[in-house]
Amino acid sequence: MIIVLKPDATKKDLEQVKKKIVSLGYKPHVIHGKTRKVIGAVGDERGKFILQTLESLPGVEKVVPILSPYKLASKEVKPVKTKIRVAPGVVIGGDELVVIAGPCSIENEKMLIETARFVKEKGAKILRGGAFKPRTSPYSFQGLERKGLKYLARAREVVGIPVITEVMNPGDVEMIAEVADILQVGARNVQNFALLKKLGKVKKPVLLKRGMMTTITEFLMSAEYIISSGNPRVILCERGIRTFENATRNTLDISAVAVLAERTHLPVIVDPSHATGYSRYVPAMAKAAVAAGADGLMIEVHPEPESALSDGPQSLDFPSFEKMMEELVPFVRAAGRTFSLAR
Amino acid sequence: MIIVLKPDATKKDLEQVKKKIVSLGYKPHVIHGKTRKVIGAVGDERGKFILQTLESLPGVEKVVPILSPYKLASKEVKPVKTKIRVAPGVVIGGDELVVIAGPCSIENEKMLIETARFVKEKGAKILRGGAFKPRTSPYSFQGLERKGLKYLARAREVVGIPVITEVMNPGDVEMIAEVADILQVGARNVQNFALLKKLGKVKKPVLLKRGMMTTITEFLMSAEYIISSGNPRVILCERGIRTFENATRNTLDISAVAVLAERTHLPVIVDPSHATGYSRYVPAMAKAAVAAGADGLMIEVHPEPESALSDGPQSLDFPSFEKMMEELVPFVRAAGRTFSLAR
Amino acid sequence: MIIVLKPDATKKDLEQVKKKIVSLGYKPHVIHGKTRKVIGAVGDERGKFILQTLESLPGVEKVVPILSPYKLASKEVKPVKTKIRVAPGVVIGGDELVVIAGPCSIENEKMLIETARFVKEKGAKILRGGAFKPRTSPYSFQGLERKGLKYLARAREVVGIPVITEVMNPGDVEMIAEVADILQVGARNVQNFALLKKLGKVKKPVLLKRGMMTTITEFLMSAEYIISSGNPRVILCERGIRTFENATRNTLDISAVAVLAERTHLPVIVDPSHATGYSRYVPAMAKAAVAAGADGLMIEVHPEPESALSDGPQSLDFPSFEKMMEELVPFVRAAGRTFSLAR
Amino acid sequence: MIIVLKPDATKKDLEQVKKKIVSLGYKPHVIHGKTRKVIGAVGDERGKFILQTLESLPGVEKVVPILSPYKLASKEVKPVKTKIRVAPGVVIGGDELVVIAGPCSIENEKMLIETARFVKEKGAKILRGGAFKPRTSPYSFQGLERKGLKYLARAREVVGIPVITEVMNPGDVEMIAEVADILQVGARNVQNFALLKKLGKVKKPVLLKRGMMTTITEFLMSAEYIISSGNPRVILCERGIRTFENATRNTLDISAVAVLAERTHLPVIVDPSHATGYSRYVPAMAKAAVAAGADGLMIEVHPEPESALSDGPQSLDFPSFEKMMEELVPFVRAAGRTFSLAR
Repeated sequence: MIIVLKPDATKKDLEQVKKKIVSLGYKPHVIHGKTRKVIGAVGDERGKFILQTLESLPGVEKVVPILSPYKLASKEVKPVKTKIRVAPGVVIGGDELVVIAGPCSIENEKMLIETARFVKEKGAKILRGGAFKPRTSPYSFQGLERKGLKYLARAREVVGIPVITEVMNPGDVEMIAEVADILQVGARNVQNFALLKKLGKVKKPVLLKRGMMTTITEFLMSAEYIISSGNPRVILCERGIRTFENATRNTLDISAVAVLAERTHLPVIVDPSHATGYSRYVPAMAKAAVAAGADGLMIEVHPEPESALSDGPQSLDFPSFEKMMEELVPFVRAAGRTFSLAR
Repeated sequence: MIIVLKPDATKKDLEQVKKKIVSLGYKPHVIHGKTRKVIGAVGDERGKFILQTLESLPGVEKVVPILSPYKLASKEVKPVKTKIRVAPGVVIGGDELVVIAGPCSIENEKMLIETARFVKEKGAKILRGGAFKPRTSPYSFQGLERKGLKYLARAREVVGIPVITEVMNPGDVEMIAEVADILQVGARNVQNFALLKKLGKVKKPVLLKRGMMTTITEFLMSAEYIISSGNPRVILCERGIRTFENATRNTLDISAVAVLAERTHLPVIVDPSHATGYSRYVPAMAKAAVAAGADGLMIEVHPEPESALSDGPQSLDFPSFEKMMEELVPFVRAAGRTFSLAR
Repeated sequence: MIIVLKPDATKKDLEQVKKKIVSLGYKPHVIHGKTRKVIGAVGDERGKFILQTLESLPGVEKVVPILSPYKLASKEVKPVKTKIRVAPGVVIGGDELVVIAGPCSIENEKMLIETARFVKEKGAKILRGGAFKPRTSPYSFQGLERKGLKYLARAREVVGIPVITEVMNPGDVEMIAEVADILQVGARNVQNFALLKKLGKVKKPVLLKRGMMTTITEFLMSAEYIISSGNPRVILCERGIRTFENATRNTLDISAVAVLAERTHLPVIVDPSHATGYSRYVPAMAKAAVAAGADGLMIEVHPEPESALSDGPQSLDFPSFEKMMEELVPFVRAAGRTFSLAR
Repeated sequence: MIIVLKPDATKKDLEQVKKKIVSLGYKPHVIHGKTRKVIGAVGDERGKFILQTLESLPGVEKVVPILSPYKLASKEVKPVKTKIRVAPGVVIGGDELVVIAGPCSIENEKMLIETARFVKEKGAKILRGGAFKPRTSPYSFQGLERKGLKYLARAREVVGIPVITEVMNPGDVEMIAEVADILQVGARNVQNFALLKKLGKVKKPVLLKRGMMTTITEFLMSAEYIISSGNPRVILCERGIRTFENATRNTLDISAVAVLAERTHLPVIVDPSHATGYSRYVPAMAKAAVAAGADGLMIEVHPEPESALSDGPQSLDFPSFEKMMEELVPFVRAAGRTFSLAR
C-alpha cells in the first residue's frame, strides 16, 4: 500500500500513521515528496484490506493499493493455464475450443433431448439447460425445478453428453451436483458469497458468470472465494456488462478475454447470447470471442425460439446454430486451436 | 405491447404475428403506418413477458412493452403510501424522518452497546449492525455470524432500540428473523431470487437495498418478488449505483427518490455512507436525501473509524454523527416532516 | 508518481527505469517491497503526464499518479471560494443562492420577454435562452442563431436582467460575448479544447457544463484550460451524467457538488432540468441541490412547454416555477444562504 | 410515435392529444387497451422530434418513438454498402481489410517518415498522425499544429501513402483538407455540431470516431449531420466506450460492429489502441475486430513508445506491429476478406 498524506499533514499526523502501519504488521517507508509525503507500507498486502482504514486518520489524503487482491486465482501464483476435465474427452482450457449449447430453460423432456442430439451432432461438447431460472419478474416462468433436473439427467444419459445447469440456492448445491457435470453460477449471483462458499465444498467444476456490473478484479475475487473454499476447478464466463448502450441487451466486454488471459490461469469462455440479447448478433460475436482467445463458447439454442418460455429473442434456431458452427471453423483454426468440426 | 414490423414484412408475416398474438390470449390491433405496420396487442401484459418472444418471428423489428411489469409494488394498484411499523413508535413511511444508524459490522458487544446508546441519544430510531457480512474478498473479515446476532439481541434489549441486520443465505432467514426487527437484503443480493422468495414468508419487514447495477424497474420487480410471496412490508433503500465516476465509491442516484415516490407506495430511505464511501461527504448527501423526499436515512457510525474491521473510511465517528443530526433539523422541517431532534 | 515494477523485473530493468526518471527531471526513490519493487518519482508531477509513458518500459507493471492533475482550479492553490460578479448585485459563489431560468431555446421575442419578466419577478437573477442550439439530430430546430441573440439583447435591456447563452463555435465567441453576461459551454463541448482556449481570451464569465461522461477530474481539467488561457471566471455546472438508468434522461450526480466543494474554489451550480429530463422531478432535485451545497440552480422555464421547440418535457410552466421558488425558501435558509424571495 | 395515456386520462385529455397530433401533421389512431389508451401517430416521424413534447400534455404517460431518427445513414434508405475510395487502390468498405497506422502525435519529420515507411512496408495502407491534439490537460503536449501538417504532407509525398489527421476547430477544416486524404473527428468532438456541419462542405472523406458516451443511434445521427450537410463519404470508427471497468482505458464495444453492419451502409473500422489503452491487448482486439466484421483497423505505432509525447502505453513498437500484421492474416482470410499481406 501507498499512503499519501495531505499537503498540510503535521509531523504528529505522520507519526500516528507510521505507528498504525507498524501496529498492523507492516514496515513504513517514507518518501519526502515536493508537495506532500508518501508512505510505502512494506509487507504482503493481499487479503489485508484493513490498511484501507488508514484513510480515516487525520492527515491522510488517500490510500493506494499496489497489489491485486487475489492470490489463488492469479497467474503470479500459478503461471500455467488450468485445464478442467469435465468428462472423458471434454477439457476446458486445453487446445480444443469447447462449445456449450442448449436451451435457456428446460421446457420438457422431448425438446431437451432433441436439442441435445442436434447440438452434439453439430459439434457442441456440453449441453446447457436451466432447471432453476433466475427471472427478473416473479410472474415469469421460473423453471421446471426438480422435474427439469430429471429431464437433464435423462438427456445426459440418452444422448451421452455432459451437462451444465444453474444453481441459485446454497441449499440446492448438493442435489444439483448429483446431476450436473458443471454447476453454473449466474451473473446475478456472482457476489452471492454464501453460494460461492458452498460451491467450494463440491467436487464438480463451477462455471462462474461475470455480473453485469462486476469489475474484472471483483470477478477474480469471486473465483477466489470458490478456490479458497476448496474447489480449484473454476471456469470464468464473460457474458456482457451493463453500460449506457442499449442497442444490445448488455455490452460484450471482449477485452476482458485478453485481460483475464494475462491475470489468471483459469479458463475463460464467452456467452454471446446473453451479452447481445439478439440471436442475429451471436455468430459475429462468437467469432470475435474465438479471435480474442476464448477457451470456449456458451450458446443458447432452441428448436423454436419464437415459442421459448425464456430468452427466445437471443436463441439460435437449429439451422442458425449449424451455420454458425461451420463458419467458426476457420476462425478456430486461425486461433491455433482444435475444433470437433475441423476434421 | 406494441409490435413493430420491418418495412419489408410480408402479408404472411403479418398474419403469422397476428395468429401468434391471438394464441397468447391477446387481441391484435393493426395500425398501417407510413413506412411500416405496427400492431397493438390488447390485454394486460404485466407478467406476460412471453410476448417478447415475438421478436423471433420473421418480419418483426421490435417489441415495445407499454406497461410497467410490476403490479403489487405500483402506485397504480395501491395509491396510498405504505407505513411500516417497526416497533412501538417507530414507523417508516409516515410523517417522521427515521434515522437508522450503527456500525457496518458488529465487532464486539461493548462497542455495539456503546454505539447503540450514543446514536439513540442523538436521535436515531433503529440500530444497524452486520453479523453476516458480504465482503468482496474471502480474506476480509466475514462478520461474527451467530455470535454477532447474540450481541445484537443484547444491544436491542439493554438499550431499548429496534435492530436491523443483513441476511445473505435463504437458510438463515428464520434464525435472523428471531432477532431482527427488520431483515436487510444487501445490494449484491437484490436479485437473489431464492432469498427474496424466502423473505416473502417471514413476518418481519424487509429492507431491500438497490443493487449497484439495478434499474429502478428491476428494483421494483425485486420488491414484487417479496410482496407476491406474501410479505407486503418492504422498505426500499437507494445506496448508490455504479457509474464511470470514481471520486465516490458509487454514485448516489438521488433522482431515484423522486422517481420511486411517483411509481410506488413503498417507503424509500437513502444510505449516503455506502453511496459515497467517504464519511466527509455523508452529511451533505444526507441533507440532499431529506430534501429530495426520502422517508429515512441509513448511516454508518463507528466509535473509532480508523480501527473499524470494515468500511472505516465511510463511517462517521460520534462527534460527526451528532453534528450531522443537528444540521439536519432545518432540512427535515423544510421537508415538512417531524424529527426526534426537532423538539 | 509511483512506479510499480513487475515481480520478475530484473536489476537492469530497475536501472533503466531509474535512468529514465532522472532524464525526465525527477528523483527516483526505491522501496524494496515484499513481492515487488516500487519507485517514487519525487518532483511536481502536475502537468507532466510524460511519466505515464514509463508504463512502456520492460519490467514496469503500472504507473500510479499521486497528485491531481489540475493546479489553477484546485483549492490547494487557492483555498478561498471564488465569487463571480455577473452584473451589479448578481454574484455567483457568494452568500446568495442564484437562480438562472428561462427557455431552452429562444423561439421569438415575445415569449422571451414574457418569460424574462416572469422569472425575474419570481426571483430568478439571470435569464437563460439558447440562440445556437446543439441538437442530436440535424433535422431538429437548430436555434434562431443571430436573430436569437438580438432578441436576447433586447430582453436584457427591456427587462433589466443579465443573460446567459451557449457558444458552440470558437469563431462565434466574440460575437456572443458582446451580448451575453455569461457564456455557456454545453455538455457536449466540455472537451472541445479549441473552444475552451478561445474562451480563455474573453472578458466574460464562462459557465462550463459537465459532460455526460466526464469525470470530476476531467471536468476540472477543462476548467483549467479556460483559466490557464487567461480567464479565471469559471462557473461549474453539474447537469447529470450518463448511466445505465433510463428512468431519468441522465443521472444527477448530486455527490459531485460535495466533491467539487472539497477540490475546487470555483462556484458550482446544478441544472436539474437536463439532469432529469422531466419537469415533474425538477423541484425535488432543485431542493436536493440546495441542500447539498450548490451555489445556484439553472432551470428551464417555458410559457407553454407542450409547444416548446426543444426540451418541452423538462421545462417548468409558469405556475410550477413559481411554486418551486416558494418551496425552495426554507431549504435555502436551512443551507445558510440568502435568497431573493426569502425576505 | 406511440403516445401512451395515463390510466386516469380523461376524455378531454384524449381529445386534446388527438388535436395536437393533427396540428403537427400526423393522423391519430387510438387503441383502447385494457388498462389504458394508446395512440399511434401515423406519419413519417423521422426528424420530427417535436412529437416528444406531447409528454408535457395532461393525461400523457409517455411517448415512444418507433422509427430510427436517421435517414441518410440508414440501410433502409441505401441498402448497399458504401465504398470510400481514399486514394488510388485504397478503398474502405470494399473487400480489402484496410489498416491505418502511425504515431498518435507527429513529433518530428524524421520519426514520421521512418514510421510511415515501416508501416507501409508491413501492409498498412494509410498513415495516421496527429498535428492538432485534443489533450485532457492544457499542460500536455498539444501537437506541432501547422508544422505537424507540413511534416505530414512531406511523409505523404516521400513515402507515397495517403494520410489521415484530426481536425478540432471548424476554422481549421479547409487548411487541413488541403493536406489530409481523410479528416478525422475525434471522440470528444463527435457531437461538435459546428464542426460536423463544416465537414459536410468538404470534398474529402471524414473518419468519425464514436464518443465515449455516444449511443449507436447518436453516433449515426452525427454521421447524418455530415451527410445531410453535403458530404456522403463518412467512415465510422468504434474506439471504445466509457464504462465502470477500468482494467482497460475504455471498453471496446465489439458488438457495435455487428449492430452498425445491420443499420447503416457506412463502412466501420475499429481502433483497438484507444479502446484498450495498453499495447499488449491491441493484437487480440484487432483480431476480434476483424472476426466481428470490421472493414478496417486503426493502430497506433511508434518507433519508441516509452519516449512518445502522447499515448505511449497504447502504441505498438515496430516489431510488435509487424508480428500483429502477420498474425492477422488467417483471421482476415477467415473473414472472407483480402489483405495486402495475404499474398
